[in-house]
Amino acid sequence: MENPTLEVLQQTLHREMPITVPMGIEVVSWENEQLTVRMPLEPNRNLHYSAFAGSLNALCTIVGWGTVYMLLERESLAGNVVIRRGKIRYLRPVRAPEFLAVGLPIDPSESDYFFELLRSKGKSKIDLDVEIADEQGPYVRFQGSYVVQD
Amino acid sequence: MENPTLEVLQQTLHREMPITVPMGIEVVSWENEQLTVRMPLEPNRNLHYSAFAGSLNALCTIVGWGTVYMLLERESLAGNVVIRRGKIRYLRPVRAPEFLAVGLPIDPSESDYFFELLRSKGKSKIDLDVEIADEQGPYVRFQGSYVVQD
Repeated sequence: MENPTLEVLQQTLHREMPITVPMGIEVVSWENEQLTVRMPLEPNRNLHYSAFAGSLNALCTIVGWGTVYMLLERESLAGNVVIRRGKIRYLRPVRAPEFLAVGLPIDPSESDYFFELLRSKGKSKIDLDVEIADEQGPYVRFQGSYVVQD
Repeated sequence: MENPTLEVLQQTLHREMPITVPMGIEVVSWENEQLTVRMPLEPNRNLHYSAFAGSLNALCTIVGWGTVYMLLERESLAGNVVIRRGKIRYLRPVRAPEFLAVGLPIDPSESDYFFELLRSKGKSKIDLDVEIADEQGPYVRFQGSYVVQD
């Protein structure tokens, strides 16, 4: 991993959110404000040998949380990042031995507003979309509403 | 556990959805169509030492899934139970060393329709509400839309 902030994010997840270790969650990349995180099927399988919905949701929740973490680090801002609401659609069973969740592009007006509010009020919020997909299309679509507080 | 079906549900979760083992998920009771499932904080903590949102969602997802499982068993019906959509609100951080998620009462007209559709079409769907709460009120409100297929 060439990005030291991404390395810290990975270590923070495994140390401070220990269930991410048996889930096998691994941060992959951060490019153009899009965070990619990997999960293996085996420890997260259900009785149909596809991925357990709860694990898929946890993966997406972490992509959103990690996205806010990376945005704050980039701007040298601090704050506690918390999810307030989530919505998820499970479109197709995930049977790949491993799979990726990716943050969808953030509207610049949305991130501008997020930073403006954070700098002026010391707290802010942002809605983030995350997708788990393969070349045939999306498996899972997720939206999380995150807040940052002192 | 005095209910043998509940015992089978517990064994099925730990055997077929292995991430429920490190999550420490334990089925507690099934009364009046309300399933209660327990989770400990420690393996599911986040960096604020409250429960990780992804674990809370997984817990609620299992309560909904297990509720459909118990309804099918009671009526001697078979089918694969799958969640299609979920919505969740995280209202207060969960800092209790262990906590319970409980299925909220199911409207009889909703469950009648669910069984009618399943018996006539061989597939059906039901929306289920789940809550994680203490005596001060709800921590988490969840709604999941489940389908049953052959």
